[in-house]
Amino acid sequence: MNDQQTTIQAVKDRVQTFIDQRDWQQFHDPKNLAEAISIEAGELLEQFLWLSSEESKCLPVEKLEKAKEEIADVLIFLVYMSDTMGINLVEEVERKIEANRKKYPVNRSKGSKKKYTDL
Amino acid sequence: MNDQQTTIQAVKDRVQTFIDQRDWQQFHDPKNLAEAISIEAGELLEQFLWLSSEESKCLPVEKLEKAKEEIADVLIFLVYMSDTMGINLVEEVERKIEANRKKYPVNRSKGSKKKYTDL
Amino acid sequence: MNDQQTTIQAVKDRVQTFIDQRDWQQFHDPKNLAEAISIEAGELLEQFLWLSSEESKCLPVEKLEKAKEEIADVLIFLVYMSDTMGINLVEEVERKIEANRKKYPVNRSKGSKKKYTDL
Amino acid sequence: MNDQQTTIQAVKDRVQTFIDQRDWQQFHDPKNLAEAISIEAGELLEQFLWLSSEESKCLPVEKLEKAKEEIADVLIFLVYMSDTMGINLVEEVERKIEANRKKYPVNRSKGSKKKYTDL
Repeated sequence: MNDQQTTIQAVKDRVQTFIDQRDWQQFHDPKNLAEAISIEAGELLEQFLWLSSEESKCLPVEKLEKAKEEIADVLIFLVYMSDTMGINLVEEVERKIEANRKKYPVNRSKGSKKKYTDL
Repeated sequence: MNDQQTTIQAVKDRVQTFIDQRDWQQFHDPKNLAEAISIEAGELLEQFLWLSSEESKCLPVEKLEKAKEEIADVLIFLVYMSDTMGINLVEEVERKIEANRKKYPVNRSKGSKKKYTDL
Repeated sequence: MNDQQTTIQAVKDRVQTFIDQRDWQQFHDPKNLAEAISIEAGELLEQFLWLSSEESKCLPVEKLEKAKEEIADVLIFLVYMSDTMGINLVEEVERKIEANRKKYPVNRSKGSKKKYTDL
Repeated sequence: MNDQQTTIQAVKDRVQTFIDQRDWQQFHDPKNLAEAISIEAGELLEQFLWLSSEESKCLPVEKLEKAKEEIADVLIFLVYMSDTMGINLVEEVERKIEANRKKYPVNRSKGSKKKYTDL
């Protein structure tokens, strides 16, 4: 499992095996998993605090390594939460992009950072 | 792109095309993307606020639909941020699970919610 | 400054002096301060992760100490951000409670956790 | 209660009265209150998303009004959570500033955004 051709399903299987071996599913209701995602997202954001936009494009190595770990943590909990709730992650991404296509038509949103309600 | 056999790469490509068509990459430095992930994670958590653990396992349909959307938002920004930073998402997940395997050996962590520092 | 009779102004003055002495106001635009508040709020939440509602009412001493620190961090950044933006914190709290009084009239909201839009 | 000379205690009393009248304390364990703080902090951060540091210093009026509301929400939940947990908010702020004074001595931290571990 080491390239981008890995499927979402393969990531899920890895996470699930890790959890099952430790008998941890008992602690993992969706409320706690949503908390975990939010906490890890905060730790990711922490790597960019006080940095300028430019500085954030070229993190010092220690912060970069930490950022990678936090990104992995968010994804692991996200994949696991979806599985727990019976959500098809890929289908939801597809639906969301489709919805955004309608909210943000190319001709009106190109180069603009306005919210769709202000377009 | 509608089943779990979709690759991470395919999700990336979809997101990238959407962004490119709108010329939005100019707003998307890693600092802002980390903010976006954190904000969406908060919106996901909001669907579970004041609910008990049991209630969170069976969300009312409106909250469930909202939760699905927020999960998709987090994933979209996560995939896009990784791409922007040149991070191989799958490799990082693999590294993180490997590290956790060492931190939480099955024989000591089974059925326990202790942090690895307390095992 | 050691009891609840301390004014918001006194808290502000303390924070401001600390910042001024270190010449840190240069890093502290509202965007970064909002990030800081969100990050600290995540660290506060972390103390309650995987705990049940009951367990959260009686934190082990180490988590309690950490929670106290994080609560202080959130308040410090909140007070400082308000000052930076020229926001009168007390006035805003008053306005918000007043608005909530209208959204949640006692007779309809008593004992209910419904959102005001569903009352 | 409309100026900065208001005490923390007075803010607490206002919040407590509002909650008591609606019989809402039953839903408000510390875990949920920490979630609420984190969610509101995310809504505050949302007002600054995609903005530059400079832009964040001069929010458009609509975002500014929203930011004020979110700041009030964070403070309301923070004050209420402290009360629920028997935490003296002012004492904790004082302790935290004192600890930071030691971690960040003026002579070494002036004008620097290094973390104390790197000073």
